[in-house]
Amino acid sequence: MKTRLLFSVLILATFFSHAQESNPDDKGVFHFGPWEEQWGYAQGRKVGNTLYISGTVGRGETMEQQVKSVFEGIQRTLEAYGLNASHVVKEVIYTTDIEATKKAVTPRMEFYDGNTPAATWVQIERLFSPGSMIEVEVEARFDLD
Amino acid sequence: MKTRLLFSVLILATFFSHAQESNPDDKGVFHFGPWEEQWGYAQGRKVGNTLYISGTVGRGETMEQQVKSVFEGIQRTLEAYGLNASHVVKEVIYTTDIEATKKAVTPRMEFYDGNTPAATWVQIERLFSPGSMIEVEVEARFDLD
Amino acid sequence: MKTRLLFSVLILATFFSHAQESNPDDKGVFHFGPWEEQWGYAQGRKVGNTLYISGTVGRGETMEQQVKSVFEGIQRTLEAYGLNASHVVKEVIYTTDIEATKKAVTPRMEFYDGNTPAATWVQIERLFSPGSMIEVEVEARFDLD
Repeated sequence: MKTRLLFSVLILATFFSHAQESNPDDKGVFHFGPWEEQWGYAQGRKVGNTLYISGTVGRGETMEQQVKSVFEGIQRTLEAYGLNASHVVKEVIYTTDIEATKKAVTPRMEFYDGNTPAATWVQIERLFSPGSMIEVEVEARFDLD
Repeated sequence: MKTRLLFSVLILATFFSHAQESNPDDKGVFHFGPWEEQWGYAQGRKVGNTLYISGTVGRGETMEQQVKSVFEGIQRTLEAYGLNASHVVKEVIYTTDIEATKKAVTPRMEFYDGNTPAATWVQIERLFSPGSMIEVEVEARFDLD
Repeated sequence: MKTRLLFSVLILATFFSHAQESNPDDKGVFHFGPWEEQWGYAQGRKVGNTLYISGTVGRGETMEQQVKSVFEGIQRTLEAYGLNASHVVKEVIYTTDIEATKKAVTPRMEFYDGNTPAATWVQIERLFSPGSMIEVEVEARFDLD
């Protein structure tokens, strides 16, 4: 009984958190949560035909888990604007270990599913949080040819 | 007397240097100074509705001073095109010490004053000049929704 | 005789490989070769008035050789879309040795030939391939003012 109640609460919480997320404001600004305004940035920002998506990080103890989580976050952002992976035209991957990233590309390939953005992959010293191994920034377009 | 003359000369120099700065040419190119053409780049470049601003560095011995100086340089560039911080939609911060940057964000927050661009912050090995601790590249738009 | 045959084959191979390269598809996607689809990216991607060019690497044992080779690759990409160096409005240079890059800028200056894009140059830990010393990402526009 307790489990069932907890389950319902979790479903509701997920629903409302996603409901909150899924509405960019009338200036095209989309946030994952309140910490973004505290740090002065937005997860997504639409202007004209362009959607700028912030460097997105993910959760997990391994590169594989983080790659998967990063592209889930990008997918949620795209969906908030009615877009999907096929609208991504540019990508920059910042990783702390490029060989590990090369070995963990499966979730990225599944995400793009044949779409090929212009891309740059670089290995850098550190990301915003000490535990982050990969951060991915993309630009998407509403006016694909 | 000497001091007064020097003061007048400095005011004039400042006036003319800013006057020179404040006019992007008819191709939308804006320079801070002649060294930019020697290195083959422009501080600002407008095309259509987009203003691309070069990675901007600042002066100072500490991260705090450099952060302040960087955003003053970006502000001057925006103003040359009749824009302000609210038009910035994307930012990449390259820093040699991301924890120090996180502690020195006040001038950045004051600059944006509630505007939230899509942002990526990464710690890299080195910037163009050995003394630079932070470099900030932004993209601004003339056609905000 | 053998040499002559080999020569003809090489010319034909070059012709067809360039012929293959020189046609972006009807979605504005341009590839240097089949490995790009295996890694899920495109050397060039046109949308609207914007051409996104992937971080481009070059061949060579020295920084000088790689800088030259990188801008030859960017030139080929621009030409595939009927553009040239004057259409490049933004550049990010990722290098493993920024002082060496500063000393090897001649082929870059010859490439731009007076054009001045907004630019950011950073020194990072490593690029996609262990032997790469420099990678250059550019954005070009079809609608220059």
